[in-house]
Amino acid sequence: MTQREVYLDDIPLDEAWRRLIHALTEAGAWQPLAGESVGLDQALGRVTAEPVWALLSAPHYHAAAMDGYAVRSRETASASDNHPVTLALNPAGPARYVDTGDALPPWADAVIPIENVQPLEMDAGIEIRAAVTPWSHVRALGEDMVATELVLPANHTLRPVDLGAIAGSGHSQVVVRRRPRVAVIPTGTELVPAGSPVKPGDIIEYNSLVLAAQVEQWGGAATRYPIVPDNFEQICRVVAEAASRHDLVLLNAGSSAGSEDFSARVVEQLGQLLVHGIAVRPGHPVIIGMVGNQPNAAAGAPAVGRTPIIGVPGYPVSAALTGEIFVETLLAHWLGRAASRPASVEAVMTRKVLSPLGDDEYLRVTVGEVGGRVVATPLSRGAGVITSLVRADGLVLVPRHHEGLNAGDRVTVRLYRSADDLARTIVAIGSHDLTLDLLAQHLAERAAAGGGGATRLSSANVGSQGGLVALRRGEAHLAGSHLLDPETGEYNLSYIERYLPDTPVVLVAFVGREQGLIVQPGNPRNLRTLADLGQPSVTFVNRQRGAGTRVLLDFEIGKIGLDPAEIAGYEREEFTHLAVAAAVVSGVADCGLGIAAAAHALKLDFVPLFKERYDLVIPRVYYAGELLAPLLELLHDPRLRAEVAALPGYDVSRMGEVLAEIL
Amino acid sequence: MTQREVYLDDIPLDEAWRRLIHALTEAGAWQPLAGESVGLDQALGRVTAEPVWALLSAPHYHAAAMDGYAVRSRETASASDNHPVTLALNPAGPARYVDTGDALPPWADAVIPIENVQPLEMDAGIEIRAAVTPWSHVRALGEDMVATELVLPANHTLRPVDLGAIAGSGHSQVVVRRRPRVAVIPTGTELVPAGSPVKPGDIIEYNSLVLAAQVEQWGGAATRYPIVPDNFEQICRVVAEAASRHDLVLLNAGSSAGSEDFSARVVEQLGQLLVHGIAVRPGHPVIIGMVGNQPNAAAGAPAVGRTPIIGVPGYPVSAALTGEIFVETLLAHWLGRAASRPASVEAVMTRKVLSPLGDDEYLRVTVGEVGGRVVATPLSRGAGVITSLVRADGLVLVPRHHEGLNAGDRVTVRLYRSADDLARTIVAIGSHDLTLDLLAQHLAERAAAGGGGATRLSSANVGSQGGLVALRRGEAHLAGSHLLDPETGEYNLSYIERYLPDTPVVLVAFVGREQGLIVQPGNPRNLRTLADLGQPSVTFVNRQRGAGTRVLLDFEIGKIGLDPAEIAGYEREEFTHLAVAAAVVSGVADCGLGIAAAAHALKLDFVPLFKERYDLVIPRVYYAGELLAPLLELLHDPRLRAEVAALPGYDVSRMGEVLAEIL
Repeated sequence: MTQREVYLDDIPLDEAWRRLIHALTEAGAWQPLAGESVGLDQALGRVTAEPVWALLSAPHYHAAAMDGYAVRSRETASASDNHPVTLALNPAGPARYVDTGDALPPWADAVIPIENVQPLEMDAGIEIRAAVTPWSHVRALGEDMVATELVLPANHTLRPVDLGAIAGSGHSQVVVRRRPRVAVIPTGTELVPAGSPVKPGDIIEYNSLVLAAQVEQWGGAATRYPIVPDNFEQICRVVAEAASRHDLVLLNAGSSAGSEDFSARVVEQLGQLLVHGIAVRPGHPVIIGMVGNQPNAAAGAPAVGRTPIIGVPGYPVSAALTGEIFVETLLAHWLGRAASRPASVEAVMTRKVLSPLGDDEYLRVTVGEVGGRVVATPLSRGAGVITSLVRADGLVLVPRHHEGLNAGDRVTVRLYRSADDLARTIVAIGSHDLTLDLLAQHLAERAAAGGGGATRLSSANVGSQGGLVALRRGEAHLAGSHLLDPETGEYNLSYIERYLPDTPVVLVAFVGREQGLIVQPGNPRNLRTLADLGQPSVTFVNRQRGAGTRVLLDFEIGKIGLDPAEIAGYEREEFTHLAVAAAVVSGVADCGLGIAAAAHALKLDFVPLFKERYDLVIPRVYYAGELLAPLLELLHDPRLRAEVAALPGYDVSRMGEVLAEIL
Repeated sequence: MTQREVYLDDIPLDEAWRRLIHALTEAGAWQPLAGESVGLDQALGRVTAEPVWALLSAPHYHAAAMDGYAVRSRETASASDNHPVTLALNPAGPARYVDTGDALPPWADAVIPIENVQPLEMDAGIEIRAAVTPWSHVRALGEDMVATELVLPANHTLRPVDLGAIAGSGHSQVVVRRRPRVAVIPTGTELVPAGSPVKPGDIIEYNSLVLAAQVEQWGGAATRYPIVPDNFEQICRVVAEAASRHDLVLLNAGSSAGSEDFSARVVEQLGQLLVHGIAVRPGHPVIIGMVGNQPNAAAGAPAVGRTPIIGVPGYPVSAALTGEIFVETLLAHWLGRAASRPASVEAVMTRKVLSPLGDDEYLRVTVGEVGGRVVATPLSRGAGVITSLVRADGLVLVPRHHEGLNAGDRVTVRLYRSADDLARTIVAIGSHDLTLDLLAQHLAERAAAGGGGATRLSSANVGSQGGLVALRRGEAHLAGSHLLDPETGEYNLSYIERYLPDTPVVLVAFVGREQGLIVQPGNPRNLRTLADLGQPSVTFVNRQRGAGTRVLLDFEIGKIGLDPAEIAGYEREEFTHLAVAAAVVSGVADCGLGIAAAAHALKLDFVPLFKERYDLVIPRVYYAGELLAPLLELLHDPRLRAEVAALPGYDVSRMGEVLAEIL
């Protein structure tokens, strides 16, 4: 705790842009980059820096458009079935054989297709039975392009057919924008490269991988630097060197207000700090400045920086969004492309979200098309949860001065996937089970092999009751559920009647599974029954209210008269079986109630206690529809069944069976 | 004219696919390619060949989520403003400083953010004024991913954030599908490489450029072979060699029924010919087969081919569409991607199109959003017109057994551009002028610099009257027009009143320009006036009916009493000034009526005869709208005006002036 920086400011996004553009303009760097001439075989995806004007016409001569005979049209004028015209074959006319693409002889003005003439014997000539009009079956000079015409404007991203048109107009090269050069510098003593063995406190460095891939995707050329430890002089040296050879420097991590926050000082040392903190979530601690390749002589010396630098926050979601917000826009401007406007869709929020008043917040959401309505469900808002971006179908911006969004609010989602992808996605909201991942995997494989219906299963884990609520609200196509009715001992049926009184549903068996105690390897506390949870020294980790496992727990401890208040850790709730197992691995808890597969997955021990049914609840309208057809077929696929059966504690004997149709 | 092949068949597209898939299945080649392990920094855009399961949890330890102090939450329970709790700093507790991302000490269960504590002097400890709950400001092990969880399914195209998630789950490599290897072999003695000097009959070879770029774009690896002349044995050798090293061979040209048609024979020699001719336009003479690397021993010997080969037609539009129809689908299948379904839009056809009953026809169309209606206008249908693909906004399929489409029919357009691009496109239909290209170019430059409104000008040339008709039908935002009223000597006004009686329009001056005779260099026929067109030996090339230049011609020859029947070539109509000039260059005609710039562009001579006004006719609703704002501003841009004024025969003195508002 030696050096401490506080945020210089925490300014709105548009003010940050204003400062950056002003500084870039001063440095002469707010304009498209210069052009460079490249061969057409290297030009795919590049952006034209100049208009392309045709050097040649295409065709550059009158060309035969068919295989046939070049003739003078006026010499065919009298031809008819009764009075055929005969023309001798001679290179100088009146008829000459031509292939498609051959130059028309100067004396000819039409081509008769070969199938329309009768060749005479001994190549003596041809017999014509119909007149031809001038210029028929001829591609006239300039039919495609005329020399001097505009073939393509500047600032055009080159597609395969564009390369053909440029070549056809007489060029072998094209002048395209130089690729913006971007240095990506990861800093942090705690960082280790991907694939290294890790110990607690080590952070796998992958932001540079993501940022470099973003740069490449947006048309730049990225240089990924090796990890630089938290050493002020060393970071200054690397940044100065990078600034001298790149159009943009991305300095990752070290931008929070923590003790290793060198980024702002580095920028001040090498140039001018423009922005330190932006009112955007995730992404808050973004730093923006201009740097040079020499330290400022003294504090207060005029800024020498001519290269923009962005201090990218260390959390992966913040880093990736900083890329989307700043880097993409800069690269598009330097490439002369109009800034891309991603596809968007109007959707209805399924959950209430509170958002800080002062910040623009980018919510990651899944988007589903359910019953003709597009719904958006927020994902984890943690800046450290990269899977929230991987799973996201899009972003919803909650602007500053808004307290948040209510369920039912209409929002615009900036899409990461095509609308077509979304229309082919099955939305499953409900209880979590590992085998849903397998089902998703098989669905993806099946989609690759072709066929109709869904190509993707998107599943959100909100517990069994949450899933039934989602079905009621029209937010999902199906829900996984394993809700025990304490009165009847039956699974799911009474809950469906209670939650979905007006919705005809089909209850389809998925898996039977064992519930039990997930315990440390070797079961050191020797836990055998739920009654053991009452021991004061035993800590437990619970599932959230509404989860089938929680219903089961509450039912079973009620049966044995164990008071929740007697269970240490009863209040600590996790949302998935794996999260419960993870809590046990980490030592947060001695045990949790969950399924065998989760225990085995994390190499924990398992004390089986109960058998339960995990079913799929499917509104009849979707059960009968085309979208779900491949999923329902998969339930009878021997390969999927074998893979599930091979997991510990799973019973697939009833998989796919229709257990009930509730009208 | 030695060898002649006729089409073996001319089968529907789906039958062609059936034969190909059957043959591929027999050869064991109708399945996704094997996986290969690549470093994550090489994996952007590749497709996963296996699911990715998490090796590590993320975080893989309990991590501080803020810079602050690790504590035991229970030791803060009594803290309040009035009764602060003091904790000593010690690595073993009760408090220890931690940076964001540090491992939580084993004795701690919460972090207090640094801004919420009061450090005591001399680092003696911290003072806490509020209780913290267990696990607050801690990222628990597995918060992002839990080991064994599915990170990504197979058959997923990797994006930047995916690479981050894979790295974060403990991998440094990922197993992706091998890139399909595609050989692209151009054949034809008449072909010359791009950029070569050309003589009549030479065809610039660029299909291999387009096909190779398509392959790269769709995730394959293309090998472009040098041009192979039309020599049967040589083509066989090259194909056999290519087949031994590639997953697919594209043999370009030589697939028509012409004399140089070796492709079908090559396939028969090296394997099995499956398809020769498909009922698709453009693209008819497609060949499909399976080839090996050894010739068949004898005619009728069993096929030895295990590598698919496609004989791609020589016309560039046919070649590019063959790529889209066959190559993309094959590559997607081999990569395990679901075949992409391009974005599409419903549009209204603006023109009648007749289509051959027996064929699927792919029409290239421009698409515009005009007045809230999406309209599709067919482009040139010539298979040789590559610019029809460059200019196309999408394709409309006219299926077999349909006679065509009527104006007003609703069609589905498979889009080449984003819907956003289309919404930002100004649709100009009307008279052609070279300076529209300059305007388009300036608009594209302006768009790259940012700002609202249009980014693109799409112009179709149908003549002045055609443009007014397009405005009346709601198919365009503006029309270029230079229609002389023979009664009044005034331009455009009376025509607007006649054609657009119910549409308020603004008439904006664009350019003044000279019309005159475009003649051979040196004016060898010594043409001086329109009366000279009456000389029997002088051939003329005309503009189409409805063109302003045609109106002018008819008006002026009427004045001097020259009968159209006396003008040789009066019936030959071209659609643009440049096409007229091109006809003169080629010797088709001695002269045509047109503008000076077209003559100069093609190094012809020009005999000025008349001055005319070329205006923009803009319905008031668009004149006042945001879309056209940048275009209207450009009319006052000194740079654009200077560039136009520098062209021969142009007068920019009134550019941008509102000449009339007609309500």
